Amino acid sequence: MFPVGRSAERVEAFAAAIRDQGGSATAVVADTTSAVEVARIFDTVSAQAGVPQFVVYNAGNNRFAPLLEMDDAFFEDLWRLCCFGGFLVGREAAGRMLPEGGGTLIFTGATASIRARPPFTAFASAKAALRALAHGMAREFGAQGLHVGHVIIDGGIDGDQLNSRFPQFKERLGEDGMLNVDAIADAYWSLHAQHRSAWTLELDLRPYKESF
Amino acid sequence: MFPVGRSAERVEAFAAAIRDQGGSATAVVADTTSAVEVARIFDTVSAQAGVPQFVVYNAGNNRFAPLLEMDDAFFEDLWRLCCFGGFLVGREAAGRMLPEGGGTLIFTGATASIRARPPFTAFASAKAALRALAHGMAREFGAQGLHVGHVIIDGGIDGDQLNSRFPQFKERLGEDGMLNVDAIADAYWSLHAQHRSAWTLELDLRPYKESF
Amino acid sequence: MFPVGRSAERVEAFAAAIRDQGGSATAVVADTTSAVEVARIFDTVSAQAGVPQFVVYNAGNNRFAPLLEMDDAFFEDLWRLCCFGGFLVGREAAGRMLPEGGGTLIFTGATASIRARPPFTAFASAKAALRALAHGMAREFGAQGLHVGHVIIDGGIDGDQLNSRFPQFKERLGEDGMLNVDAIADAYWSLHAQHRSAWTLELDLRPYKESF
Amino acid sequence: MFPVGRSAERVEAFAAAIRDQGGSATAVVADTTSAVEVARIFDTVSAQAGVPQFVVYNAGNNRFAPLLEMDDAFFEDLWRLCCFGGFLVGREAAGRMLPEGGGTLIFTGATASIRARPPFTAFASAKAALRALAHGMAREFGAQGLHVGHVIIDGGIDGDQLNSRFPQFKERLGEDGMLNVDAIADAYWSLHAQHRSAWTLELDLRPYKESF
Repeated sequence: MFPVGRSAERVEAFAAAIRDQGGSATAVVADTTSAVEVARIFDTVSAQAGVPQFVVYNAGNNRFAPLLEMDDAFFEDLWRLCCFGGFLVGREAAGRMLPEGGGTLIFTGATASIRARPPFTAFASAKAALRALAHGMAREFGAQGLHVGHVIIDGGIDGDQLNSRFPQFKERLGEDGMLNVDAIADAYWSLHAQHRSAWTLELDLRPYKESF
Repeated sequence: MFPVGRSAERVEAFAAAIRDQGGSATAVVADTTSAVEVARIFDTVSAQAGVPQFVVYNAGNNRFAPLLEMDDAFFEDLWRLCCFGGFLVGREAAGRMLPEGGGTLIFTGATASIRARPPFTAFASAKAALRALAHGMAREFGAQGLHVGHVIIDGGIDGDQLNSRFPQFKERLGEDGMLNVDAIADAYWSLHAQHRSAWTLELDLRPYKESF
Repeated sequence: MFPVGRSAERVEAFAAAIRDQGGSATAVVADTTSAVEVARIFDTVSAQAGVPQFVVYNAGNNRFAPLLEMDDAFFEDLWRLCCFGGFLVGREAAGRMLPEGGGTLIFTGATASIRARPPFTAFASAKAALRALAHGMAREFGAQGLHVGHVIIDGGIDGDQLNSRFPQFKERLGEDGMLNVDAIADAYWSLHAQHRSAWTLELDLRPYKESF
Repeated sequence: MFPVGRSAERVEAFAAAIRDQGGSATAVVADTTSAVEVARIFDTVSAQAGVPQFVVYNAGNNRFAPLLEMDDAFFEDLWRLCCFGGFLVGREAAGRMLPEGGGTLIFTGATASIRARPPFTAFASAKAALRALAHGMAREFGAQGLHVGHVIIDGGIDGDQLNSRFPQFKERLGEDGMLNVDAIADAYWSLHAQHRSAWTLELDLRPYKESF
């Protein structure tokens, strides 16, 4: 497994945690919003493990602001991270995986992918753009063996990011009120495991008690 | 397993086929568009195996006609089979499963569930009605432990019905151009197996080479 | 204008109100869930004014209940009123208007047409079914000159029904917080007035201050 | 009226054509993908005619390519033109119009706004992003009096661009097979004319004979 991230510290720690549990993981420090770095990611992976068969793009950052207070960079950066990086990774993945017969490419969506609410308008715009990318790629590459999926995460993820910043959030939601990270991974893997005669393009994931 | 159908011959043969493969199956002959019969189905199942934890409603019949040639019964019967039976089964299932802590209830959708095209307008209307039922039930009962799913089958199913009537259809689509029945079952089961912190309400299933 | 309704008292009063304002209106008392009565409506209209060019189906009744408390008739009656009557009227309208070159046929939708929330699940199911009917008819008959529209009313209507039963509702929403009836009529008429090179199938209408 | 465009020649000719028909029009040459230029547009308009009450963003360019042949700039430029310019114009318009009590702001969408098909994946991604922007702004600013609309043009527009490049296209579609420009303008204006108790966020426009 090759976790990718901009922060060496975080991605190395993540890879180490996987190895501690008996898994195999090599951290790749890179910025997915640069085509050159994206190519380097795939070069690194391919050199060590061959062309990947399972690629997930889940970079994102649901920053928010009133629209009148969003400066140009705020709006653009969200798109660059949530969508443009997805395009770069998707294009690179398709270019390398298709000659090998395909594989699975999953983009992570959010509630905002299909519903734009302030103050998340910029995030919603970027996520809607990513979703359309996924749908277009699914239609373009499915018949060639590339399974493109788009998973809408509709709820809080029970991970470090939310829990360290909003510890009371988890408590308030109660048991299984946030998405378990392993459960998300299972869902992604189940897409990869699907028989090609019955592929899923889009599914939603939310806690059983989530209001929606 | 308790396959249900109106035709004794077909549902018995189906149950026998499952037993031949080492499974356990008891055929239940019933019409799901009658509340009395639906109650009887659940009584039969409960008497033999307890309250079910996994219920699938996949009755349906994509009959088609130009709208001006649809008589009243044509339009109504499609709704009764595709949607009303789903309501009766869903209500009965919820009423019995909720006191036991819940379970999984899946409704089978179709491309027509989200796209109404002639000459399938009546079918689309009935399937859209079923989908809304599923969404409403998911919202009403999720927090009580009932996982409601709606699976959109977008393509031809590689089963007896299509193959016996349109044998050339399968040939034209080529290998894995129709949905494999086991692959569909896997997808349904994967919904049942989901951790309750990450439930899916809706997913689509289509052959990798399907144009959509 | 030929207002139609089941209650002679209400539909006569409505027609009288239109005449009082200088309009022309003839009440037609009929139940739109019966094909025979629907044919009679069109016979009556045609005898007096020729084949209609503008038909609106807005029967409906957003009754609600917890799903486990809905009996069979509750679920079925909502479908019969919200959807089946729409099918009968739509079929009759198309059958009469198409030979005359077409016209406009509008179905009234609601928030529930695209979002099923308890305790409105039965209503949502029926309205989703009506919407699919409208979309299918639009695709089937557009090229023959029949403009089918589906208008989603997303908010409370500032009419007798709501105001007499929930007077405090209007007060709480404030000025223009409910949909003005004339404004709705303007929107419907604007669909009828559209040039056939730029027809609208679906639009939503909601008060400027509505949260959605 | 203040038509805006990057090409002085085209926007001047357009303004002149309006004046020839007795209208009032001042061309503004500007690039809407620059915040500075967008501010200048509004300054120019405001100096001559006060804060505008009706603003339309319809920049766009449905360029297409196989995804593997799209270079970074291709994907980014489409987003910049179709979506980022919309953000800049929307933000500027809201900032100026809200203190005056609001007005109408319309974004032009396309079939691709809601359906991503190759080879239009980049265009679809950008248009989906614009649509989400419109929906978010509608929710954020509606209650303050800003009517945000998103109009989905589903068909070819009977204007210079298509007709000069693909003259046979119009012929093949036949009479009224392409969207009449005046009919589009009427639809936009009807949104501006709506009573605030019944505003439309989204409508689609397509020729009566369009297949969809």
